[in-house]
Amino acid sequence: MSATPAITIVEVSPRDGLQNEANLVETANKIALIERLVAMGARRIEVASFVNPRRVPQMADGEAVIAGLPDAPGVRYIGLCLNERGVDRAIATLDGRRPLDEAGCVLVASDTFGIVNQGQSIADGITANSAMLAKAKAAGLFAQVTVSAAFGCPYEGPVPADRVIDLARRMADAGAQEIALADTIGVGVPSQVGELTERVIEAIAPIPIRLHLHDTRGLAPANAWAGYQAGCRTFDSALGGLGGCPFAPGAAGNVGTEELLYLFGRSGIDHGLDLETTLAANAWFATIMGRALPSRAGKAGDFVARPIPTGATS
Amino acid sequence: MSATPAITIVEVSPRDGLQNEANLVETANKIALIERLVAMGARRIEVASFVNPRRVPQMADGEAVIAGLPDAPGVRYIGLCLNERGVDRAIATLDGRRPLDEAGCVLVASDTFGIVNQGQSIADGITANSAMLAKAKAAGLFAQVTVSAAFGCPYEGPVPADRVIDLARRMADAGAQEIALADTIGVGVPSQVGELTERVIEAIAPIPIRLHLHDTRGLAPANAWAGYQAGCRTFDSALGGLGGCPFAPGAAGNVGTEELLYLFGRSGIDHGLDLETTLAANAWFATIMGRALPSRAGKAGDFVARPIPTGATS
Repeated sequence: MSATPAITIVEVSPRDGLQNEANLVETANKIALIERLVAMGARRIEVASFVNPRRVPQMADGEAVIAGLPDAPGVRYIGLCLNERGVDRAIATLDGRRPLDEAGCVLVASDTFGIVNQGQSIADGITANSAMLAKAKAAGLFAQVTVSAAFGCPYEGPVPADRVIDLARRMADAGAQEIALADTIGVGVPSQVGELTERVIEAIAPIPIRLHLHDTRGLAPANAWAGYQAGCRTFDSALGGLGGCPFAPGAAGNVGTEELLYLFGRSGIDHGLDLETTLAANAWFATIMGRALPSRAGKAGDFVARPIPTGATS
Repeated sequence: MSATPAITIVEVSPRDGLQNEANLVETANKIALIERLVAMGARRIEVASFVNPRRVPQMADGEAVIAGLPDAPGVRYIGLCLNERGVDRAIATLDGRRPLDEAGCVLVASDTFGIVNQGQSIADGITANSAMLAKAKAAGLFAQVTVSAAFGCPYEGPVPADRVIDLARRMADAGAQEIALADTIGVGVPSQVGELTERVIEAIAPIPIRLHLHDTRGLAPANAWAGYQAGCRTFDSALGGLGGCPFAPGAAGNVGTEELLYLFGRSGIDHGLDLETTLAANAWFATIMGRALPSRAGKAGDFVARPIPTGATS
């Protein structure tokens, strides 16, 4: 293993993995989850979302989670900021025991989706995110932004690649230090993900790209692999593939960290995490959630030769 | 759409999809399933396995299923033959109302797995399959063979690519008219599947290759896409991703037909099936099985823009 892994996994289970869970996960369990993620080897972890607690009660304890973050050297903690108030809350952690390292902003690539979800058109989103990125960066936070619905909008359908490239370029001009493309509703296919990844890399270089993929239609690992082949080296994923809505059977969650570790690990690409520790974390967190987590690789585990049944001759 | 689709989907739900199901599916429901598969547009369907009914009770009604097959012009029906007795049973259907079109043989690429499952070493398997292929072909059946455990053995671990290529070449020499590579336990990754597919195509050309992928670790769609890029044009899949063992949560089944239709369809590659009819078949068969089928694309459905919620302004 090299000192620097070939790819970086950004663990989003404490935020995107949990925010749609109707049953509130206790703050202590969120902190214990983050400790597990650190032990797995995750070096970037999305730990909180600074949203209105009335809109997303599961994320109401952001500051409390941050107050209890393990002081893990080399680990970067991310807070999701959906507006300037969120950036202010992220900046406020800088005075605390364990400050956040990154502010993650979100620009929705669809007028309709942006207005339905946040009352914000694309144009308004560009203005708001530009100001948010500048403010976060000025305060010393790593300022990154995710272009969401980059591969399709639930209301408008397909999202033109040219629009996503334009938005990525605008965010680069606004000072973003990393730009992610999100397949928020899990509709992308590998040819599309590969092509858009390549074009956005070309548009924003040397600013790095990140992919945020949902496994709604079982294609997230295929899309991650296509993104890797196109040059992406940083991928969001969630332990156990958390992030689906437990009451909507169709809504699978983020791509499972287990899927990405198995995919990249067996392809000889160093990801810096430990699959066995990850599988143990999955088993533990399933007991917290009271159900098996959706990740298939998490259920099946690593490829380990089994003992030959007694009685068989070879 | 062209007259000949760019890829062929071989529907294996009536056989590989059901054989591990503990609850016996009635013959009439198997026939109704096959009728649905025909209506979806499937043009090759694996309908029966000629195994000892005491070993696999779910497959005991092979001849009864065949007696009730829809007489669908242009559809090719496949019977799985694990030994010479199986080939004889496939040949016997040639005198019936609706004869089988293909005999599918199986050569296990691992001594240990072959001996544990069928009491047959690789060497014995080569001899047996060579005779079986010749007999089936002489009788007028399309004689194809699957090299199983081609990407890994549950007991021996990794299976050397050179061995698989050698076995494929031997089966080609024995007269096989198509050779499939099976990721029986779902351990392959795209780089491996792509490379082995390419090498086997080179070794057996002009005999066509087929891929049979299980989605045990969530990578089957990624592997199918890698196989396509390497030149494979025929893929096994099962409606709803059937084929896991319902009592072993880790044992996911075949790659879902829904996943492949979504993957290839949205990539602009004509597969000749209709996704909406497939989703309806999935919903119907879930009522027969009494549970949701594992396919994620089957649960989420096609990418269709939803109506904008009332109250939102665009």
